[in-house]
Amino acid sequence: MERPAEPPALDLALDAAALTARLVDIPSVSGSEKPLADAVAAALATLPWLRVDRHGNNVVARTESGLAQRVVLAGHLDTVPIADNVPSRLDADGVLWGCGTSDMKAGVAVQLRIAATVPRPNRDLTFVFYDNEEVEAERNGLGHLARDHPDWLAGDFAVLLEPSSGQVEGGCQGTLRMVLRLPGQRAHSARSWMGDNAIHAAAPVLERLAAYVPRHPVVEGLEYREGLNAVRIEGGVAGNVIPDACLVTVNYRYAPDRSRDEAVAHVREVFEGCGVAEFTVTDHSPGASPGLSHPAARAFIEAVGGEPRPKYGWTDVSRFSALGVPAVNYGPGDPNLAHKRDERVAIDAIARCEERLRAWLSAGVSAAA
Amino acid sequence: MERPAEPPALDLALDAAALTARLVDIPSVSGSEKPLADAVAAALATLPWLRVDRHGNNVVARTESGLAQRVVLAGHLDTVPIADNVPSRLDADGVLWGCGTSDMKAGVAVQLRIAATVPRPNRDLTFVFYDNEEVEAERNGLGHLARDHPDWLAGDFAVLLEPSSGQVEGGCQGTLRMVLRLPGQRAHSARSWMGDNAIHAAAPVLERLAAYVPRHPVVEGLEYREGLNAVRIEGGVAGNVIPDACLVTVNYRYAPDRSRDEAVAHVREVFEGCGVAEFTVTDHSPGASPGLSHPAARAFIEAVGGEPRPKYGWTDVSRFSALGVPAVNYGPGDPNLAHKRDERVAIDAIARCEERLRAWLSAGVSAAA
Repeated sequence: MERPAEPPALDLALDAAALTARLVDIPSVSGSEKPLADAVAAALATLPWLRVDRHGNNVVARTESGLAQRVVLAGHLDTVPIADNVPSRLDADGVLWGCGTSDMKAGVAVQLRIAATVPRPNRDLTFVFYDNEEVEAERNGLGHLARDHPDWLAGDFAVLLEPSSGQVEGGCQGTLRMVLRLPGQRAHSARSWMGDNAIHAAAPVLERLAAYVPRHPVVEGLEYREGLNAVRIEGGVAGNVIPDACLVTVNYRYAPDRSRDEAVAHVREVFEGCGVAEFTVTDHSPGASPGLSHPAARAFIEAVGGEPRPKYGWTDVSRFSALGVPAVNYGPGDPNLAHKRDERVAIDAIARCEERLRAWLSAGVSAAA
Repeated sequence: MERPAEPPALDLALDAAALTARLVDIPSVSGSEKPLADAVAAALATLPWLRVDRHGNNVVARTESGLAQRVVLAGHLDTVPIADNVPSRLDADGVLWGCGTSDMKAGVAVQLRIAATVPRPNRDLTFVFYDNEEVEAERNGLGHLARDHPDWLAGDFAVLLEPSSGQVEGGCQGTLRMVLRLPGQRAHSARSWMGDNAIHAAAPVLERLAAYVPRHPVVEGLEYREGLNAVRIEGGVAGNVIPDACLVTVNYRYAPDRSRDEAVAHVREVFEGCGVAEFTVTDHSPGASPGLSHPAARAFIEAVGGEPRPKYGWTDVSRFSALGVPAVNYGPGDPNLAHKRDERVAIDAIARCEERLRAWLSAGVSAAA
């Protein structure tokens, strides 16, 4: 019998920067996370204070000390495709280069370091490592865990260690796509009065969009910025035909004080009286509250410092929110460097993130206890 | 040596309906007109009062009697693809069924009958039979003749025997297509305020189109009806991107009192101040005057009767107009039956057309002369 290959070993005694380099050197492009998931699970299994569960290439480790609160630290294992930027390289300025350095193996290294070095935290801890974050939503490992093992994700507060330049980014905005169909009637364009032009019928829709004044609602102290935009328009049958349909796809990005249903109702209301024959929702992911009023969140913000910022884009914090767990993004990487060939992370930012999380999760626990 | 195949023979002594049936039974889908062109040329060559010229599968026959005026009778030899409707079939109600019956072998039969039966016309006559009318403009045989032998098409007045239900259709409207580009600036749709939405920028263009009041100019007694319509709109990069371009294709159908340049200037003027970054003409065929004030045309209308109607669509009369020859459509077929599987023509309409043309072209010439 052939002996199965040993998973690459991860030494959790390395500092977070060295551990990040080690993680980058184990390629884990979306769909190919198994070697890295194996290595993470094997390393966590050596820590006796953790219970480790696995679902596909998703690994969840938990303390079970019966503490009053539970905090989830989550990160994805996968990266976008490698672009000649693996293995990693540390330069003389303390910058680590390579695929996934920023998004988000530096964050995963911080998770692993906290798991290894905080055996008696002040709140029960759950560490979530998941696959397929960089690809279509239906493959997302956090989504699979939420569907199949929601109890593994339970908690009072969650931190996603996505790149946020060491700033707390609270909640996220929802995103709704709807297709608006304007009707018409075909005719030869040489006898246009016999028809009814569906492209012309889109005029009031575009006027409403051009005149739209988006809300800037403040939710738990964070000012969000909404937007309602056409992202596609299509109409036309042939160069000599009055078109009988025009489709306008709008994307509504909305603050987390608005529910799914309210968002849909708002879009329908905006275009009331514009002659839209049909509204079709093609894509909808609701927003997530920042959850900053929760005591665990307040302690977190105090510990890590800085001014929380709203997250305008949609992120996986929404999946925690849907499970009733307020969540924020907080990680060492720079989001502007994610997915780039020259992706990199400053190693002192990784260490700072690790220290601050450790301080938050250790505060009040006697070192001698 | 192999003996070349004889061209199918056409007996010009047949009546126009029987001749139409014979023409339908010689298939001549665009690009395959040679057997029919050969047959037409051979039949015309038996008529000593005609000079016959040929250019590819285009056949031109002329009387050269030095008369004061010259009239051109023109028709295309080709048909759209056969749809199980060849050979022709004459039903008990006097209706001839088959591909090309209406568009326009009935008209071609009338041309041939006039050629064969009016040896001493009151005006010099030119008979034009051309190929590839049903396909792209650059293959059009009348266009090739206009380019290579414009003298063969010279005349004071031309009649195209296209199906017009036995009514005179005067001139034709021009058709101009222009693409209007609206500019913008890309941004992520979660941060739409960083960009500039090109689809929203199309709102004033569509408003102008929706509010546009077309002219109904009267040209030589015929009331034309213009139209300005969007026939295509396209914009959008991705579902999460503010688009940086939106293209609107407009089709302006304009009456023959407006020149090429005036038409382009009009479209640019309509959209003045709408933020259009670029206008591109993609297709332009000018209109044609009905030419009804010419003495030959007046005599023609008197002879054939009825009230002349304007032609809203673009037709080959425009090619004659470009050569300085006023032209009308006048043929026995019903244009609504053209290109259909159940294409057909009433044989009494063919006979009526032939009689009226003969009356017009024979008037004043003594039968005994």
